[in-house]
Amino acid sequence: MSLSNLDLYYDTVLNLTKSAGQILRENNSNRDKYIEFKTSPTDLVTKTDTEIENYLISGLSSNFPDHKFIAEESAAKQGETLLTDAPTWIIDPIDGTMNFVHSFPHSCISIALYINKEPAIGIVYNPILEQLFTARSGKGAFLNGKQIRVSNTTSLSKALIIIENYGCAPVHQITPEVVELISSLITGSHSTRALGSAALDLCMVACGGADAFYNYGIKIWDIAAGMLIVREAGGLCTDPRGGPLHSTGNRILAASSQNLVDELSKRLSETEDKLLNK
Amino acid sequence: MSLSNLDLYYDTVLNLTKSAGQILRENNSNRDKYIEFKTSPTDLVTKTDTEIENYLISGLSSNFPDHKFIAEESAAKQGETLLTDAPTWIIDPIDGTMNFVHSFPHSCISIALYINKEPAIGIVYNPILEQLFTARSGKGAFLNGKQIRVSNTTSLSKALIIIENYGCAPVHQITPEVVELISSLITGSHSTRALGSAALDLCMVACGGADAFYNYGIKIWDIAAGMLIVREAGGLCTDPRGGPLHSTGNRILAASSQNLVDELSKRLSETEDKLLNK
Repeated sequence: MSLSNLDLYYDTVLNLTKSAGQILRENNSNRDKYIEFKTSPTDLVTKTDTEIENYLISGLSSNFPDHKFIAEESAAKQGETLLTDAPTWIIDPIDGTMNFVHSFPHSCISIALYINKEPAIGIVYNPILEQLFTARSGKGAFLNGKQIRVSNTTSLSKALIIIENYGCAPVHQITPEVVELISSLITGSHSTRALGSAALDLCMVACGGADAFYNYGIKIWDIAAGMLIVREAGGLCTDPRGGPLHSTGNRILAASSQNLVDELSKRLSETEDKLLNK
Repeated sequence: MSLSNLDLYYDTVLNLTKSAGQILRENNSNRDKYIEFKTSPTDLVTKTDTEIENYLISGLSSNFPDHKFIAEESAAKQGETLLTDAPTWIIDPIDGTMNFVHSFPHSCISIALYINKEPAIGIVYNPILEQLFTARSGKGAFLNGKQIRVSNTTSLSKALIIIENYGCAPVHQITPEVVELISSLITGSHSTRALGSAALDLCMVACGGADAFYNYGIKIWDIAAGMLIVREAGGLCTDPRGGPLHSTGNRILAASSQNLVDELSKRLSETEDKLLNK
């Protein structure tokens, strides 16, 4: 893969993402968004999700007819495509759809290019707050063109952690073990936050605004771009048990330092073990 | 109080707040903020809190020598001043100090003018994300100059609720009753979020981004401005039990509709009763 090709991919996707951002921004303030339900009353999709996804796929495939796509709304309809070695765009047209439905200003477009199953480009764009996070493999991570770095925090007791309520535990229930975990994280850290978008949560770790984030129940399109952005900003993305991250494993732990990974993965592993042994 | 006086107060405080916002913005990205602890390892104050508070009080008192002040960092040192009928500026120089310490981009200046113990002006300004929320009594609420309204949501099952972990319950402990409350709110609503700033949380309700917010353990400077902004945007601010809000009562429930107040205050009252009867 020549560098000039990657430059072309990057410039093309950046322009398309900025234009797609206009669609998101213009529709965000509309209070009567047309909503469909997917798997549950809280698993939503709007016309704008589909519109942005179609726009991005159409723009990219007309420029790069050989490239493949893994995209949230297409996957919901046609089943998930397997990631191969081919150049593949992994797209979440709106990450934080629930926020978008409520006009809570934390939704974004997440798009990544994987080549040989490795991330080459990652873009997360919140057009409402004008936060454009970009990364290219080996070239650092940026927020609105300015290079970003993870925080210097190495101790859980001084960490700000992002914990989303639907991703707080290996099981989608608030069991006593989960309560014990969350309580210990609240009282054992500086505090916790929840923005409602895994892609933006990862970017908060990347820019040093938060020190760690974990989630169970994510999909590859939620983290494909954010993961590269965290790593290019000097952070770590692992499995919640601390081992290697499986990009299709539906779970992630991101942190600014190895020590934070160690402290958090210890607690997350203990909780998971308790739940598995029940 | 003549209208021209109020206009002058408003123009003066708006200019001062914008300048103070520059101090906050410039210091936000500094990773080595000098931090002091107040009542606990998570009750922090930085040099910037003090700098902004001094700047605002000095600017306002030189323009309006008769006006009084209730301000967070002065109160921490000298004890809290009683709210009288005199024109009184209620100031939180940085709401979301923990966010500011971490450079998590959700901290703001909150400033309100009370006359005859009633709010006349409220300003909440997040200079990092350029969110300037303003309200004057009887004149509506605005975000960056554009009028805002609360959401149309009337049912808890369709609401996005903001719940902060240190304000989630009448007691500062995660008891079984509190867990039951939070679990029922997570599963019985669209979802919950946490930004870490009561003033910005209130503004999220005001602009319709969230539908409700409640908090125990706040101070008057956390809500003095945001409360007016919510009401001028058509929303309600009450006690968590649903009765009238006491501005010095350390607790608040804000919502976009009476029905949401009813549904939430019922659950909050039940939890409080259980905790009181223990």
